[in-house]
Amino acid sequence: MGDETFSSKNKQVILNNYVNGFAKESDMSLRISTINLKIPEGCNGAILVKNLYLSCDPYMISRMKIVEGYFIESFTPGSPIAGGGVFKVMDSSHPNYQKGDIISGFTRWEEYSLITDTTLCIKIEEDKDVPLSYYTGVLGMPGMTAYAGFFELCSPKEGQTVFVSAASGAVGQLVGQFAKSTGCYVVGSAGSKDKVDLLKNKFGFDEAFNYKGEQDYSAALKRYFPDGIDIYFDNVGGKMLEAALNNMRVHGCVAVCGMISQYGLEQPEGVHNLFTLVSKRVRVEGFLVGDYYHLYPKFLEMVLPRIKEGKITYVEDIVEGLESAPSALVGLLSGHNVGKQVVLVSRE
Amino acid sequence: MGDETFSSKNKQVILNNYVNGFAKESDMSLRISTINLKIPEGCNGAILVKNLYLSCDPYMISRMKIVEGYFIESFTPGSPIAGGGVFKVMDSSHPNYQKGDIISGFTRWEEYSLITDTTLCIKIEEDKDVPLSYYTGVLGMPGMTAYAGFFELCSPKEGQTVFVSAASGAVGQLVGQFAKSTGCYVVGSAGSKDKVDLLKNKFGFDEAFNYKGEQDYSAALKRYFPDGIDIYFDNVGGKMLEAALNNMRVHGCVAVCGMISQYGLEQPEGVHNLFTLVSKRVRVEGFLVGDYYHLYPKFLEMVLPRIKEGKITYVEDIVEGLESAPSALVGLLSGHNVGKQVVLVSRE
Repeated sequence: MGDETFSSKNKQVILNNYVNGFAKESDMSLRISTINLKIPEGCNGAILVKNLYLSCDPYMISRMKIVEGYFIESFTPGSPIAGGGVFKVMDSSHPNYQKGDIISGFTRWEEYSLITDTTLCIKIEEDKDVPLSYYTGVLGMPGMTAYAGFFELCSPKEGQTVFVSAASGAVGQLVGQFAKSTGCYVVGSAGSKDKVDLLKNKFGFDEAFNYKGEQDYSAALKRYFPDGIDIYFDNVGGKMLEAALNNMRVHGCVAVCGMISQYGLEQPEGVHNLFTLVSKRVRVEGFLVGDYYHLYPKFLEMVLPRIKEGKITYVEDIVEGLESAPSALVGLLSGHNVGKQVVLVSRE
Repeated sequence: MGDETFSSKNKQVILNNYVNGFAKESDMSLRISTINLKIPEGCNGAILVKNLYLSCDPYMISRMKIVEGYFIESFTPGSPIAGGGVFKVMDSSHPNYQKGDIISGFTRWEEYSLITDTTLCIKIEEDKDVPLSYYTGVLGMPGMTAYAGFFELCSPKEGQTVFVSAASGAVGQLVGQFAKSTGCYVVGSAGSKDKVDLLKNKFGFDEAFNYKGEQDYSAALKRYFPDGIDIYFDNVGGKMLEAALNNMRVHGCVAVCGMISQYGLEQPEGVHNLFTLVSKRVRVEGFLVGDYYHLYPKFLEMVLPRIKEGKITYVEDIVEGLESAPSALVGLLSGHNVGKQVVLVSRE
């Protein structure tokens, strides 16, 4: 028999061209190609996988552009985009992975992928109490991001005041819960009444507000933090960062995780009040989760039992099928998602 | 005999009114009042001093304005302005100070001052090898600022690359010398050819440039730091901060000491590239020297011998007489001074 028995159609999400300004659904297209479901001869250390869940993350939108000095290279027009995901091994030439293993790691947006760089692959111990999709979120990169950014950068203490923007998102909802479990007062901002309800009623934030209903972010923060903010976990940048700086307490700390309000702009907004850093002795620090993966086992040990005990809640927004993936991804920019945005490619 | 035998004329520099925009010499005026050169009855713990040297510092210009959230209160229109200085005790009701003592501390811009709050007073051990004026600079607040900002915030290591703006100023010239003594590569910016020469030939900076001759600060920094900046000691803010952020290395650090380029502006310039903090994992931290005065003895122990041995050089720009004080102060904004700006009020 020839190789053709192993060949399969492979639906892919392709970047059409480098994006200027706001990314749109039409910047991507679906393509059906074919893939051989066996590892090619001589391709040692690779795995051939079926993608189950794909993660939609804001940084991916920046990879659709040419951004000077960005920490990770741009996607290649004409090829599938890529990101975090959960996948199942169909064939392996890697000693650590066998057919049937479930893995979280980096993959391409397509049904089947040949993964030759397995550096960021982590084998998942399946557990009926924990959905596999969680490995794109609370148990994956966003979870580690919340953990490293909040605990490592901000060194939170009981009784401190914490503000989280994009607070119902993949990272924000966890930062809020970590802050509450540390004994902090925590307020979140989000972009709809439903999200605000989620923050207060599901995630246990002390307060929450819809930024779209506020004319003056600084005044809004003043209402919720009459004595100022000790820790600002920034997911949005721009005007909200400026407003938070106006409300920081002396020796406060800003962990800059992302700046989603700026990703679609040709010219990012200017932040005009950086002198506050001097007068209030504030530290602003950016970080990338990749620098903290050595903490992953410690993180998992902390978070996994809490999820099973229901002490940590996680909300996902799952769309089904690669056809729905482009709109799910660009929907992040307008806050279309409620909770962590995931694409279900296949249930098994 | 009556009290009038102790009374003296007292020349003062008065703030006329709160300033908008750039402070000008005409925002201050000279006034001759009278002062009793004895401590008033019942005024325990005070000292009556003759001011010898007054320090001109950029933060004082902000105190001429109403600035919301500033770390120190505004000056009072109709009263003398105030700042650091070196003075001689003429009368004392304070147990630690006696007539004839030389003290560095905070005083008012006038010939004689009654100082009731002696919290920040430090008695100077006179030393013929160290000019008294140095206690307004290298041995005073600016020296401590350079020391705390560079060593405590930036934790410099041998071989790192350091950029200092306003590098020939009271603080900058020391940061550069501290960086060299740590084994760093250090580049300074300043506002004239003479200052650039000073940086390279007197203070031992590896390189220096005149920012007024550069169209594109970011490109200028790229020339001097082809592999990026590890530490930026920021004295100016605004466009130079933005340019430095463009050139930071991964895990670089920015210590924000001041933002003199912004003090005269109605609306401070916006910094647009803060996403660099994320992609390069950069820390930006503001500080005030007041938080570090517990380190003063350690600082003095380090710096005093080095000054005497000629290992630390310090350049002052001394004007004589309170008449010259207003223009010396506002001259800081345009970089009129070469080195630490001091006003000599009286030689003894």
